Amino acid sequence: MTTRESAAAQRIRDAAIVSFAQLGYAGTSTRQIAASLKMSAAAMYPHFRSKEDLLYSIALDGHRSVYEALREVDDPSDPYAVRLENVVSAFARWQAEHHELAKVVQYELGALTADHYRSISAVRRKTTAILATIVAGGVAAGEFAADDPDDVVLAISSLCVDVCRWFPSRDRRDPGTLGTAYARMALRMVLARQR
Amino acid sequence: MTTRESAAAQRIRDAAIVSFAQLGYAGTSTRQIAASLKMSAAAMYPHFRSKEDLLYSIALDGHRSVYEALREVDDPSDPYAVRLENVVSAFARWQAEHHELAKVVQYELGALTADHYRSISAVRRKTTAILATIVAGGVAAGEFAADDPDDVVLAISSLCVDVCRWFPSRDRRDPGTLGTAYARMALRMVLARQR
Repeated sequence: MTTRESAAAQRIRDAAIVSFAQLGYAGTSTRQIAASLKMSAAAMYPHFRSKEDLLYSIALDGHRSVYEALREVDDPSDPYAVRLENVVSAFARWQAEHHELAKVVQYELGALTADHYRSISAVRRKTTAILATIVAGGVAAGEFAADDPDDVVLAISSLCVDVCRWFPSRDRRDPGTLGTAYARMALRMVLARQR
Repeated sequence: MTTRESAAAQRIRDAAIVSFAQLGYAGTSTRQIAASLKMSAAAMYPHFRSKEDLLYSIALDGHRSVYEALREVDDPSDPYAVRLENVVSAFARWQAEHHELAKVVQYELGALTADHYRSISAVRRKTTAILATIVAGGVAAGEFAADDPDDVVLAISSLCVDVCRWFPSRDRRDPGTLGTAYARMALRMVLARQR
């Protein structure tokens, strides 16, 4: 792919993210996306052969971007509590900073073909594994308490992913501040001693 | 409204919930909803004058149902920890049991008119107030620790609302079990003693 082709594909993806986030995947046609770029539907075809192909490209990029954001901040030589805070903070922050992309990434996976869904699931599993490794490691080291580590990982994922639904709100406009607050909540989930 | 009119309105709402949840509000036409009920669009008009009117009716019912579910299980004479567990359990459980309705209720509010949005917001505030009252009461009584009670309420809401996005999954199919697990996570957020 030449740089020029790549820039065109990126423009198409960006326009599609806005439409999918606002109108939903089913509520958007490739014709509309092309029109918003003053392009013909035929001119989009060399880049994306179908609306589903476009969704897959967006979802794959988005999921890889989340994974990289978490991997980048996770230093296995840090104490587990620091690792958990860093990773959750980056996760919640990503959902805030990329809230339109995140909605597409999180809400529209049902429209993918089975093959494409499997590819996306593989990236999701890698992302979840970062969290799961930290929680399990912290429990094994006696630094964390968890009745069921799977529940903790699921709950922390829910906590972070939901950010894209409402961010920004009147009172919450800074992704970094939100990330820090959510990271503290997540840490509390595993540092608690039930009375 | 006679019982017969009411039953027809309910059938229309139920069909709309399925379409809105699967295709999004923008991806659904009133014509499609009518067709799925073997009805003419004109026959729907006495019940709902527009697609937005239908969304508003669904969103209002849904938000009232969440509020009632929380209010019902909250006994102010219980200790704060019990109240929090009961309310969070009911909240997460509602999102699981009504996951299609919940998606419409949570994801499509942007399509409401300003007036309708304000009415819905009033119900949302009452629901949030149940959680906020318990968290603030628990902190004041020295039973809970929270750096920022608003963060805790926001995080617990995120935790619960996200359930409708993914429920049911391969491993999680029982709303009651999920509600109990999420309630424990929420309780940990306020019982934690940071080390």
